[in-house]
Amino acid sequence: MTPPAQLPDLTPFIEAGRRDLAALVALESVSAQGRMLPETADAVTVLLEGEGFTVRRFPGQVAPVLLAEAGEGPATLLIYNHYDVQPETPADLWNTPPFVLTERDGRLYGRGASDDKGELVSRLAAVRALRAAHGGHLPLKIKWLIEGEEEVGSPSLAGFVEAHAAELKADGCWWEFGSVSEEGRPLVSLGLKGIVCLELRCAVSDSDLHSSLGAVIDNPLYRLSRAIASLRDDSGRVSIPGFYDAVRAPSAADLRALDSLPDARSPLQQSYGVRGFLGNADAREVNRRSNFEPALNVNGVHGGYGDAGSKTVLPASGFAKIDIRLVPDQDPAEIVRLLRAHLDAQGLSDIEVNELESHEHAARSDVAHPFVQAALAAARESYGAEPIIHPSAGGSGPMHPFVQHLGVACVAIGIGNVGGRVHAPNENIRVEDFARGVRFGAVFMEALSRRALGEKEPGREALG
Amino acid sequence: MTPPAQLPDLTPFIEAGRRDLAALVALESVSAQGRMLPETADAVTVLLEGEGFTVRRFPGQVAPVLLAEAGEGPATLLIYNHYDVQPETPADLWNTPPFVLTERDGRLYGRGASDDKGELVSRLAAVRALRAAHGGHLPLKIKWLIEGEEEVGSPSLAGFVEAHAAELKADGCWWEFGSVSEEGRPLVSLGLKGIVCLELRCAVSDSDLHSSLGAVIDNPLYRLSRAIASLRDDSGRVSIPGFYDAVRAPSAADLRALDSLPDARSPLQQSYGVRGFLGNADAREVNRRSNFEPALNVNGVHGGYGDAGSKTVLPASGFAKIDIRLVPDQDPAEIVRLLRAHLDAQGLSDIEVNELESHEHAARSDVAHPFVQAALAAARESYGAEPIIHPSAGGSGPMHPFVQHLGVACVAIGIGNVGGRVHAPNENIRVEDFARGVRFGAVFMEALSRRALGEKEPGREALG
Repeated sequence: MTPPAQLPDLTPFIEAGRRDLAALVALESVSAQGRMLPETADAVTVLLEGEGFTVRRFPGQVAPVLLAEAGEGPATLLIYNHYDVQPETPADLWNTPPFVLTERDGRLYGRGASDDKGELVSRLAAVRALRAAHGGHLPLKIKWLIEGEEEVGSPSLAGFVEAHAAELKADGCWWEFGSVSEEGRPLVSLGLKGIVCLELRCAVSDSDLHSSLGAVIDNPLYRLSRAIASLRDDSGRVSIPGFYDAVRAPSAADLRALDSLPDARSPLQQSYGVRGFLGNADAREVNRRSNFEPALNVNGVHGGYGDAGSKTVLPASGFAKIDIRLVPDQDPAEIVRLLRAHLDAQGLSDIEVNELESHEHAARSDVAHPFVQAALAAARESYGAEPIIHPSAGGSGPMHPFVQHLGVACVAIGIGNVGGRVHAPNENIRVEDFARGVRFGAVFMEALSRRALGEKEPGREALG
Repeated sequence: MTPPAQLPDLTPFIEAGRRDLAALVALESVSAQGRMLPETADAVTVLLEGEGFTVRRFPGQVAPVLLAEAGEGPATLLIYNHYDVQPETPADLWNTPPFVLTERDGRLYGRGASDDKGELVSRLAAVRALRAAHGGHLPLKIKWLIEGEEEVGSPSLAGFVEAHAAELKADGCWWEFGSVSEEGRPLVSLGLKGIVCLELRCAVSDSDLHSSLGAVIDNPLYRLSRAIASLRDDSGRVSIPGFYDAVRAPSAADLRALDSLPDARSPLQQSYGVRGFLGNADAREVNRRSNFEPALNVNGVHGGYGDAGSKTVLPASGFAKIDIRLVPDQDPAEIVRLLRAHLDAQGLSDIEVNELESHEHAARSDVAHPFVQAALAAARESYGAEPIIHPSAGGSGPMHPFVQHLGVACVAIGIGNVGGRVHAPNENIRVEDFARGVRFGAVFMEALSRRALGEKEPGREALG
């Protein structure tokens, strides 16, 4: 075993990483709209090759998948990131242009600054620093899987991971996101919710009608409203029969982690002006729901007149977009079937239901796994604070195929923050978190290069 | 009593009327958006003065009110029209530019071609013809009231009619619209529904949130959906307690008129691709609801993501626009109070309710009134067909102040058609109906000039 290398001053690596981030944010890689995806894959490839990675490019359904490899050592780290971003709409609510990385008051604003270009670039900066500390040699094997379809549900990824399972074998997977609390504590997630995205559509005629006909002709926005109102109740509980049948109950360890989580409410209230919480939930209940409960959310409803004043029109049609966040072991396809059956039973067979993109299963890894423990130790060292451990994030991502096909534990540690407005206007990271993220990456990978995590196959006990 | 004048060949008057209509349609007088209203009032004034009218102009809340007078004779006819139009949105669904009057396949397309510039201009053409037949003299007194706020609920009109009641005294009022059936029978309305236009708003935070927070934070589009779904049922019946308390039952004469009405369903199905009718209503039930039932209609719902694909966002807010069509003797202000109380009782106090514009009371006139009978006789003569009599139109308008303050009967006969797409893209009239409308106007006014309608005050028996 070689003695630990002294990490160099990270400042120049952080500065270079910020320049890389500005370049990537400028590429409008909105996967939902198919914008600039191959160009962004090219730019990421150039960055990786510059750090000695061999990059292979595979076709995805929407955007290329990149698989990069570099380094040699006792440990093998799989990193997962994505180069696509959410749409910038509503664009008029941004204070600065969404695709221009802009520093203001200690934050860097831009679409993808956090999710996920900021994460990707901070890790690349850590690799640079580690190579510098080791005389140009990367002392662990890194397999870096970077896709461009994450924000549209990663339709290619599960198949890709399954098909390349042997090549992707690793001691553990560093997941694509993570954030830092107001107090500087790393927020670590060991699981992700699944997701189903649907569009509900209703049409009553071929063209708009004078609203006086509302006395005798049905209204598509009333029909959609009734459908939406039938899907959940005011407490947020989903009303679809059978919806909760497959929900995996939290383990005793899950519930212990829950008890140590801080109150998530006031940061949300302060950052976003949130008026209140479903069911007047207390701190523990908010955490329980975020970690262990599925949820049904309306992303948008549009139909009919929406400009100033009024227009007495009976619209021909309307649509709603919804997402359903799933937990282990709900099956997305079964959930769609249950929703359709529920609408039919409610006399809403005229509501058309279309899946918008590939669904995802939920996944959770075990806090006791050695790879997770190594990541937590590196986080303690580099942040100088006790990590806050979420058994599952509230968000979704394609973690399930990694757990299912590779048997790896996944741990999400990164550079986001609770006021980061991910998926919303004015997405941002704190400059300080970017720097801390580079440091964490270097400490984590340096530590992995000195540990014998590979001695035994992580195997299925990685699954929570 | 002078002998009846022979009406001249109407062709040149119809041609001139079409040119006037093209000029007025080109003026984008959208009252909901405050566009080109004084300019359109100017153009109408010029047209009226050209036919010998003295035009007075009064300020309205949104647009000038015009009161024009001309002619002398035993009868006094009050005409009511408006020069404002509905918004042209969704503009991309028009086959030709909305503000360019365009002939195609026997129809004239354009915003306002029917509602209400086509009506106004056809009546002016009839006045021209009548003056020509009488050597430049108009053989009856015409009082023409033309406003520019009808499509935003005529906020100034009730006050105007009340304040000018003495000057507006007449033997009856020719209402601003009317249409012709597929078979060429004039569709006559003797009443109008009232209306209330509301905006419902809901906000849960100051900015959009990642939809994973839907597990713990309420969704404004769910809240709006629940509110909308609570306001009516699938049959269209309004669920607000007390809503029907003041509804005036149809009289025996009303019900007789109902029995003679043709089936309105297949024209709607053919013209607009209407899928079906609320409650699977039969022909008589469709007519009963259209004439005598109030209705609650959703004009638009907007909030959150609406572009291609999906965006997993929890929107900060959303809004719905609704209209409620009222019948005699529902009170609009009371209906708004009942709706607010209903939402509060449903646990929906967070839904903000704003009235969008002035509301209107419903009104119905009596089919037996001599002025109504004179109009029906002229319609029989000029159309060569039996009129179809609606005790009330399904639509709304400010008829109530005329009935209340002037005591006149109101009769609506005009140039629209069931496929006229009024308030919708591709609004149109049939060229033939425009010509028939000019003829009806000339015959009607000629007949009025020879009858002694003014012998007794129409009085309150005009009210149905």
